[in-house]
Order: sequence, then C-alpha cells, then structure tokens
Amino acid sequence: MATDDDVLLLLYTVERDEQWEKDLLERLPGKQLQVRWQDVCNPDGSIKAGHEHDPKIFEGVTILFTYAPVPTELVPKLRFVQLTSAGSDAWQGHPKFLDRNVKFATTSGSNPPQIAEWVIGQWLKFQHHLSSYDDYQKQRYWEPAMARQVEDSVGLRVGILGYGAIGRQVARLSRALGMEVYAFTASERPTPESRAHRGFNLPNLGDPLGEFPAKWFHGTTKEAVNDFLSQDLDMLVISLPLTKLSEKLIGEEQLRILGKKKAFVVNIARGPIVDQDALMEALQLGTIRGAALDVMDPEPLPADHPLWGAKNCAITPHVSWRSTHQVKRSKDILADNVVRLFQGEDLVNELSFKSRNHED
Amino acid sequence: MATDDDVLLLLYTVERDEQWEKDLLERLPGKQLQVRWQDVCNPDGSIKAGHEHDPKIFEGVTILFTYAPVPTELVPKLRFVQLTSAGSDAWQGHPKFLDRNVKFATTSGSNPPQIAEWVIGQWLKFQHHLSSYDDYQKQRYWEPAMARQVEDSVGLRVGILGYGAIGRQVARLSRALGMEVYAFTASERPTPESRAHRGFNLPNLGDPLGEFPAKWFHGTTKEAVNDFLSQDLDMLVISLPLTKLSEKLIGEEQLRILGKKKAFVVNIARGPIVDQDALMEALQLGTIRGAALDVMDPEPLPADHPLWGAKNCAITPHVSWRSTHQVKRSKDILADNVVRLFQGEDLVNELSFKSRNHED
Repeated sequence: MATDDDVLLLLYTVERDEQWEKDLLERLPGKQLQVRWQDVCNPDGSIKAGHEHDPKIFEGVTILFTYAPVPTELVPKLRFVQLTSAGSDAWQGHPKFLDRNVKFATTSGSNPPQIAEWVIGQWLKFQHHLSSYDDYQKQRYWEPAMARQVEDSVGLRVGILGYGAIGRQVARLSRALGMEVYAFTASERPTPESRAHRGFNLPNLGDPLGEFPAKWFHGTTKEAVNDFLSQDLDMLVISLPLTKLSEKLIGEEQLRILGKKKAFVVNIARGPIVDQDALMEALQLGTIRGAALDVMDPEPLPADHPLWGAKNCAITPHVSWRSTHQVKRSKDILADNVVRLFQGEDLVNELSFKSRNHED
Repeated sequence: MATDDDVLLLLYTVERDEQWEKDLLERLPGKQLQVRWQDVCNPDGSIKAGHEHDPKIFEGVTILFTYAPVPTELVPKLRFVQLTSAGSDAWQGHPKFLDRNVKFATTSGSNPPQIAEWVIGQWLKFQHHLSSYDDYQKQRYWEPAMARQVEDSVGLRVGILGYGAIGRQVARLSRALGMEVYAFTASERPTPESRAHRGFNLPNLGDPLGEFPAKWFHGTTKEAVNDFLSQDLDMLVISLPLTKLSEKLIGEEQLRILGKKKAFVVNIARGPIVDQDALMEALQLGTIRGAALDVMDPEPLPADHPLWGAKNCAITPHVSWRSTHQVKRSKDILADNVVRLFQGEDLVNELSFKSRNHED
C-alpha cells in the first residue's frame, strides 16, 4: 500500500517528461509520490551501470524504473522495480531479486514491434541479397536480370522458439508474408486460455489469442527441442529467456538438425543460448543458410572475436530493442503499474517470486 | 475458340516442365495444342529480346508467354499473349497490342509477395540502419547502445499510390507492422464491390476486399495526387502502371509536399514515373528521409549516372519481381488462361482493348 514517502526514480535514456509526471500524479489522488529523473546515457551513447551514478540520487527510493541493477545498499526501502526490458537476467542473483518483499515487473510487450521488425528486416535483407546490392551500387554495377535466385516467403515455415510477446509479433509479420508458423513453449498449451498471451499487448499487434501457430510444440528437454527443430524450418527465431535450461540450447546437434532445410537462424534473445563456436562452424560448412544475431557472448563483442567474420552472419550490437516509440510505451506500462501498486492490485507483467527463484 | 493448330510458345527463364505440360493438356480433352519452350536467359543472366531468338521458334505460334515483345511479322497467327509481368508498358504501341483480335493478360497477382517483401525489406533496412551495421561489422565496431535513434513503424502512415495487387500486399505487411494505410487509385471506389480486387489473388495474401485502407483517395489530376501526398505520409510506395498520365507524376512539387514528414519514397513500378533529378535534389537537401528504387530511367542505369551516388538511396537492378516461387505461380495463371481461352471464357487479368488503346 502507499506510504507517504514513496520515491520513484527513473533511470532512463530521456529527459524529464513533465506531462507524463502530471498525468501519473493525477491518477493518484491523496497519495504522495516524489518523481526523480536520471539520464543514464554517457556522452558516447553508452549506458551507465547502476554503481556509476552519484549515490545521492538513490536516497529514499522505493520504486525504480531501470535496466541495470543498482547496488543493494543504496536502495534499502525498495519495494518495486519496473524493468525497462523484457528480460530480467541482468538481475539474477541480486539480493533484491531474491527478496519476496520487492516486486518486479518487465516491460515485455512494449518492444515486440521494433524487435520483430529487426527479425523480419534481417530475414528479407538476407533472402533478397540486399547487402550485396549495396555493394553493387557502390560499384555502379547493374546485375543481369537472372544472375541470382530469390526465394520469397510464401509457404515457407518459421519456427519460433519461445512464443512470448516478441515471438507473437514475429508470428504476425510472418503470417502476413504467407509463412507457416510453428511455436515452441516450455509448458503445454492445450486450451485456448493457455494459448492466450498474458501481459501487456499493444492493440492490433502480436497474437493475443495464440491463434497463429499451425502447430504448437512444448517441453523442457533437449529431445522436445530437437523434435521442434526437425520440422523442416526455413527460419528459426530464438525468443526465449536466458535461464539455466536455455543456456547453450542451440549447439552442434541442433544446428545439424536445422540443416534439413538450411534454416536461417535469428537470435534476439540472449547470446549464451547459442553455442557460438558451433554456429560459426555450421555457417562455414553451409549447414545453415545464414544467421542474424543481435545478441552474443560476450557483449560488447571484442574486436578480435572470430564471430565478427562469420560467413553469412549479420551482427548488430544489441540494438533491436531500440525505438523512439519505446519510450512512450514503456512509460505507459510503468505508470499503470505504479497506480496498480498504490491500489494494491496485481501488476502488469509481474515476475512471480517463484519464477525469480527458479531462474537463478 | 480452339483451332486444330494452336501452338503455345513459352519464352521463359526455365526449362521444359513436363508435368505442367501434361496437366495442361489433360484439362483440354479433344483439343490440339503444341507446347514449345524456349529459355530466354543468356549465359550472363541477362534476358534475350524477342528479335534475338531464332525466328524458327515462332513458326505457327498462336499463344505467347513472354515478357519481351516479339516482332509482329514472326507471329501472324497470334491470338493470345500471356505476359509474364504485371505491367504491359513494354508492349505499348506494338501492332499486336493495338489489334482487337489479340487478347492480352498479365500475371498480376503472382508477384506481389516478393515485390512487397522488397518494399518492406528496404523500409526496415533503412529505418533500422542495417546497411550501416553491415559496415560496422566489417570494421568490428561495437556501437554504444544509444548512439542512434530507431523509429519503429507503429502508428506511422504509408501512402500506396496505385492500389493494385502489389499495393494490396504492401498494405497487408504494413498493417501487420502497425502502420496506417492510405490508398490512391485513379477511379473512385465508393462501394465494397468497387474496392474489391479484380484479378488473380493468392490465398490469404493481399487485400482482396479492399478493407485495409483507413482512407481511400482517387483522381487523375495533379491536384488529386498532391492532396494524397500531403496526408503526412511516412512512406510513399509507388505501385501504379506507367502511362502518359503517370509519367513524371512525382516531381519537385510532389517531393516538397512529401517533405512534411520526410517520407521514405519507394518505387517498384516504372522509373519514368519519378523525376529523377528532382528526387536526387530532394535526397541531397534532406527534404525526404530516403528512397529505394528498383526501377529507374534508363535501365540498365549507366555507370556514370549520378543516381548511383544519390544520398540515402538504395538502388537494385529491377529485380524485385524475382522469385523461385514466381515460376510456379505465373505458369498456374497461364494454364488457367489457356483453358479459359479454349473454352471461350473471360480470361484472368485480361487487359481490355480500351485500356490498351488508352495507355498508348
């Protein structure tokens, strides 16, 4: 319940938004909430870690809006953390994450549009040779009409490993392209209720009812995953959280299975889910047709890392989540959750204490 | 009606397909049809013009499947031309195109998937800076997280100039991205019947009922077009046929209007619809944010043409129509139309004699 001394600190990438602040306080009549803004961007565009800030900004903070973890001793009164990301792995093992009295929620559902755009943008760039046409343009070379083949997406099959908010928007785009969608989740989804998306969903986007997959697979074993990967996939999209179960989930054996139709492998989840050595080998051998990675291990990827030069592999520096629209969407989720917190209601996108313990 | 000496010549990019031929002949019991295949590819991947073939292959030909026009004197018995393209401008002014006794049909509806993929691929590549990340990857440079902004498509508006088969599939993809679709057609579409797509439509693709546009504009005057372009468009997709009316339709004035939201301009129709000098200037001045052109004037674009170096402009050598799946789809349309021709039925995608005259 509300106390008289709640302090909300937004550790964020934008300046103070007075209108947003005013709208939030109007939704909390009779409550006292101090709102504090702290830009986390360094001049070079990198993001400050929690301990790099002046400790004074944390004084009295009870509610945090942040991506990066904050030193425990600086926030003794913390009762709610609204993460600015869909994943929570940066907080795993953190004492506050293991504290039953602190609520955590993600902004899952605010970033599927841009991440799904990144996925499909990479897929289309690869299938239509767009990088190679960039090079030809620089050379002012007009390629003859039938010099190369292009395969459009109609009738191809995409496998979505982790059918959450991001996977569901990838499914929407894939269907519009004429692709068949196969989904994989850890738990079985036998009923319409179980297939529905829980958590924040943008209107007219994603797959809120779970209607798009032509087939739905599930399990927590390698065998279950391998069975899914053997379904003649043309593209595999990895969009599941990093946990001990998912670490190195896609290794040599899995890539060999994906070789059936030389799948295009896309990772927008977390780097350690893929065995990068095995991936580089599969690309070199042509077992798979190509890959696009927005996440890797480690990040930043060192300049001398061989992954930079992997064959048919597009790499971006963990940017698929970025969008100017994201700011508004994630602040909307934060505002809703602060109101719910003060009213004692269930939060949107709340991470259960059980799931936080399990993941650690 | 069928005669005893019909000869179908496929001037195409693939080898003889015996199964397709057998299936077609089975659909024509009691009819006589000789089927002849001629590969049009030169060894370097370019496509032969009609007059470059051995004249003997045209002997007795009554039905042609072709992109390139064929010399009139070689096909005196011609009665039906199934074009392998959606456009017919290559035939304008050709005596057979002006001959009421020769039917013409396009393969409109067989190429929207790949062309719409090209459009959205270029849009996403531009919006997500994917070409620039290609360069960074070569330099093994890890860009800081907030160094650049990305704007996702949710809530942005696409204007589709020419709402035919291709424009409708662009609309489907744009809607899946969360964009608002505004359509423009020459004729008014006041009723559901008038908004429906006429012609071949692939199942579950395109916008067969014309339901996707939030607003629908029409007209044949510059004023009507300018009004459409002034609707705060984030992207303009040019997908209308080249006619005397559409030539140089997008010039300096139109690009200035598109500057309202610095639209991204995409041309997958025909080069002469856009005034290239005006486009280059608008790109240089930053009036528009960027452009992607699969068609230009002339083609091939000479190596010394300044368009190759235009700022924020992606150029590909008229390849967006290509797809391995296209072969099957266009041969399906051809087979249907040959059967309809023999049975005296209306053809799919037939070009009326009036429209052929009007366009000339």
